[in-house]
Amino acid sequence: MPIVGPGDDIAGLIAAAARDCGEPLADGDILVIAQKIVSKAEGRAVDLADVEPSEAAIQLAARCVKDPRLMHLVLDESSEVLRARPGVVIVALHNGVVLANAGIDRSNLGIDGEERVLLLPADPDASAAAIRDGLSALAGVNVGVVIADSIGRAWRQGTIGTAIGAAGVVCLDDLRGRPDLFGRRLETTQVGTADELASAASLLLGQAAEGTPVVVVRGASSAIGDGRASDLIRPVELDMFR
Amino acid sequence: MPIVGPGDDIAGLIAAAARDCGEPLADGDILVIAQKIVSKAEGRAVDLADVEPSEAAIQLAARCVKDPRLMHLVLDESSEVLRARPGVVIVALHNGVVLANAGIDRSNLGIDGEERVLLLPADPDASAAAIRDGLSALAGVNVGVVIADSIGRAWRQGTIGTAIGAAGVVCLDDLRGRPDLFGRRLETTQVGTADELASAASLLLGQAAEGTPVVVVRGASSAIGDGRASDLIRPVELDMFR
Repeated sequence: MPIVGPGDDIAGLIAAAARDCGEPLADGDILVIAQKIVSKAEGRAVDLADVEPSEAAIQLAARCVKDPRLMHLVLDESSEVLRARPGVVIVALHNGVVLANAGIDRSNLGIDGEERVLLLPADPDASAAAIRDGLSALAGVNVGVVIADSIGRAWRQGTIGTAIGAAGVVCLDDLRGRPDLFGRRLETTQVGTADELASAASLLLGQAAEGTPVVVVRGASSAIGDGRASDLIRPVELDMFR
Repeated sequence: MPIVGPGDDIAGLIAAAARDCGEPLADGDILVIAQKIVSKAEGRAVDLADVEPSEAAIQLAARCVKDPRLMHLVLDESSEVLRARPGVVIVALHNGVVLANAGIDRSNLGIDGEERVLLLPADPDASAAAIRDGLSALAGVNVGVVIADSIGRAWRQGTIGTAIGAAGVVCLDDLRGRPDLFGRRLETTQVGTADELASAASLLLGQAAEGTPVVVVRGASSAIGDGRASDLIRPVELDMFR
């Protein structure tokens, strides 16, 4: 894949890259795409020099020892601040995803971009659906799409690949009522399938200089479906850890 | 793999199964093993009829609308109760893993086991190390081992495969200081590699009647290392969500 810039057609770049590497896409493939290239294509890079921080952002930035302009963007992207401590701000995005710094990132933005940051896609489920539709039109294939970001967790160290957007895949797999090995019905199991796909692909997507922004998952036929990543958001009223 | 029972040698069963399916294990393979067979081999099944619940267990069970005998086991396995609500108890195990019901499970225990439950391995990192050593002795291979369980998360719906024990693999991959695509140093990234391996394998391990208790991950050379799953536990003093 080439370096992606604003206005680029992600579906077209993926179809071309798959063709060039002699491994054309097939029906039932699931493409896990790094959030970063989707954000770049959607023009979500922001120059901090253009940001005029609000009073709320200035105050929260002081509390968290962060750049007030960055904090302004964090608050813009969020519906709720869950925790604010020196060095850390954990928020819920407007789409419900809970993560640090609203997922705003400074890495891999280019050597002349010291003051530039990258926001998450505004509507990652819609981004995934558009890429899926584009691949159907361009390459004639029916694929699933997961947009993945590396996100931290409560209680555990280390980020893991997580589905922030999806189309054409099972996101939350409801096994309740299905029999176990011995014929007893499972009582409560729901599986975060799209998050598992994102984590699996993340082992290959890498974080640093790997330059592999798309992973093709082939043969995961049971993960083909019609979920969206928003299925994975726990409703606030069922959330015990806010 | 056959159905596993108390005292079975997991390493021996895996080596035999790999031989039988014509796909011998190789140096650098990472075996992701369902917690359930490790627990069964270690004799961690408990008959609820043998449990005499403590007063604390009876009280907490009433609050959570759960079986007091089950709650007694939950408290035995735990160092801290994080949340207790009707239908839900979230605890930290003695090894620091945070999860519902102390990971105690009733599924796949056999048709005559209505009153039997299965505890997690007492020391999953030690279990993983023993299986790894066993495979070295029996099959002459140097493999990594991850013991995986399906665990729920804060903020997100659905369980995902999570590393509760590990040996011979990178668990927490510290990328701080490594360059990004454009040569800028990454600031804070630590990746939960063993959790990503567990999630990847979980897509194949399944939850219900699949009967696939071991997944071989081949070619993940960058995940070979000497971490343990306890590396993934966030220290209590750094945890903002207890």
